[in-house]
Amino acid sequence: VSHASIAAPPASATVADVGERALIERIRARVPPPPPSVLVGIGDDAAVVRPERNEVQVVTTDGLVEGVHFEWSLVEAFDVGHKALAVNLSDLAAMGAAPRLALLSLALPAALPMARLDGILDGWFALAAEHCVALIGGNITRSPGPLMIDVTAIGSARPRRVLLRSTARAGDELYVSGSIGGGAAGLGLLRAGRPDAAAADPCIAKYRRPVPRVRLGILLGRNRAARAAVDLSDGLADGVRQLAVSSGLGAIVDAAEVPLAPCARDFFTARGVDPITAAMAGGEDYELLLAAPTRARRALLAVARAAGVPMTRIGHMTADPALVLRRESRDEPLPEGFVHFA
Amino acid sequence: VSHASIAAPPASATVADVGERALIERIRARVPPPPPSVLVGIGDDAAVVRPERNEVQVVTTDGLVEGVHFEWSLVEAFDVGHKALAVNLSDLAAMGAAPRLALLSLALPAALPMARLDGILDGWFALAAEHCVALIGGNITRSPGPLMIDVTAIGSARPRRVLLRSTARAGDELYVSGSIGGGAAGLGLLRAGRPDAAAADPCIAKYRRPVPRVRLGILLGRNRAARAAVDLSDGLADGVRQLAVSSGLGAIVDAAEVPLAPCARDFFTARGVDPITAAMAGGEDYELLLAAPTRARRALLAVARAAGVPMTRIGHMTADPALVLRRESRDEPLPEGFVHFA
Repeated sequence: VSHASIAAPPASATVADVGERALIERIRARVPPPPPSVLVGIGDDAAVVRPERNEVQVVTTDGLVEGVHFEWSLVEAFDVGHKALAVNLSDLAAMGAAPRLALLSLALPAALPMARLDGILDGWFALAAEHCVALIGGNITRSPGPLMIDVTAIGSARPRRVLLRSTARAGDELYVSGSIGGGAAGLGLLRAGRPDAAAADPCIAKYRRPVPRVRLGILLGRNRAARAAVDLSDGLADGVRQLAVSSGLGAIVDAAEVPLAPCARDFFTARGVDPITAAMAGGEDYELLLAAPTRARRALLAVARAAGVPMTRIGHMTADPALVLRRESRDEPLPEGFVHFA
Repeated sequence: VSHASIAAPPASATVADVGERALIERIRARVPPPPPSVLVGIGDDAAVVRPERNEVQVVTTDGLVEGVHFEWSLVEAFDVGHKALAVNLSDLAAMGAAPRLALLSLALPAALPMARLDGILDGWFALAAEHCVALIGGNITRSPGPLMIDVTAIGSARPRRVLLRSTARAGDELYVSGSIGGGAAGLGLLRAGRPDAAAADPCIAKYRRPVPRVRLGILLGRNRAARAAVDLSDGLADGVRQLAVSSGLGAIVDAAEVPLAPCARDFFTARGVDPITAAMAGGEDYELLLAAPTRARRALLAVARAAGVPMTRIGHMTADPALVLRRESRDEPLPEGFVHFA
């Protein structure tokens, strides 16, 4: 199916005007030629894939729900499509896997404007193209309520190089990629209704189009620089807790070392909130948290440089199961993480 | 995590009362020990799987939305869980693949009673256990609207034995498994509000808990009995059309040969509707439609017997692209299939 063979609907059309079959054709028309490992792409009852030789597969699924994970008043359609894939690529990166394939399920309100669906697809396919992720299947259905997007992503990794949460050891140093708090502050800025700030603020950019650490994840999976990893979709505090509990350990995080995004520091400080606590508790930071032995420090920093990602040591794992935020003056319990269903 | 370690919530509890983390723990507690090919199951950022040697993977995704694919007034929670997996297993069967792995994404209204969620999981896990399908991942989120379930299923097949839609040839005979019209008639009976009939009627059973033709699909993938296949989730007329169009052919279906479910014949006849047309146009029949060369007839029927599934020859593929329903007296165009977004 070529682009040209699909009649463009009028600008005011909704997904119900276009219909399921034509929607599927519109998506098919956007799918680039698949890689040789995809023997059958979208269009049959299922896709057929030849797994990479001598590699294991890493599989994850995550979704976005309108009104829960995003609001149309705060984001653009492109952002929603981008993020629906980005959150899954972030999970694969946290496993040290290279993304390869994805499936896309859409539940669409009948009144959704086609322009909005096209924007979602623009964002999704742009990120997929950037990381050579092939769309191999999906599903479109009507939603009598909110728009929902579920994505399943499949990556590949070397058999004994997968990064788990549960393999940190006492004494391992804790590292975080990029900066923290930007996503939560960006959402806060948008909710405060500051459209003037929107275009320029790096926190808003981080909230709307988080950059999954794909290249970093791939390089970590090829080296032995890190011993354990988790992604920070639910915030740094939650990530430290996940890593520690899974590994049967505790952790000490040095508050002064946490790489707070400057825009997040400004945002939280202006509201009279402790920026470290707020940034650690907030979700929406799609960074990686790593545990690495002290002797691997040089290798880890080299990997981060190669990936073009800042990497900051923020603490270490402890045999004592306590989870501690170390301030200059005193120790505090680690903040609670971001809570869903709240 | 053992069952015993999870405190049972009160009978009146909702999913919001229990919270996301506890919900995930409840699901984890139900997951049986995974097969050796699952190196990391649920609980990390992603699952890690070792693909079967010398096999290709078959991947599909499909979902159910409350108010679109099911109504709580017509089905039980168990049915919803069963069907969410069954529709995916049916797709894998239509490819000649053996199901292996699945991921489960749930978007749940906050007020959903825990008893209903447990029922959904009962239905899902019962069917998964029957076919040795391992749950390797998933996602739970709140829905501000309807309940939605997305399932991704992964199966395996021999490289050159996968059954496509596009590989039928002119002269191939058309076969359909089981019987037709039961799903649509069952839904009709339920909508007509006949709870007395509900328990006994085989059409209602077929609508509520369709049996995916898993064993038949596996055996078809091991033999060369069939040349092309499609599942009948959108009805027999749609299936014939899909097979014909994908293969660049037409088809003639003999109306007298279509294996109408007796309960469907009764239902449509009582309503003054032509039962063949209604049964062919109705969706919800999770049967397989196969195209096979005449010389493979004996092998195909032997495979069907081994799978314990009735198999009926209903017509043949033609070089002429017309889609024809052949009646005793005359030829008609094939009925239109089930249409979504209608």
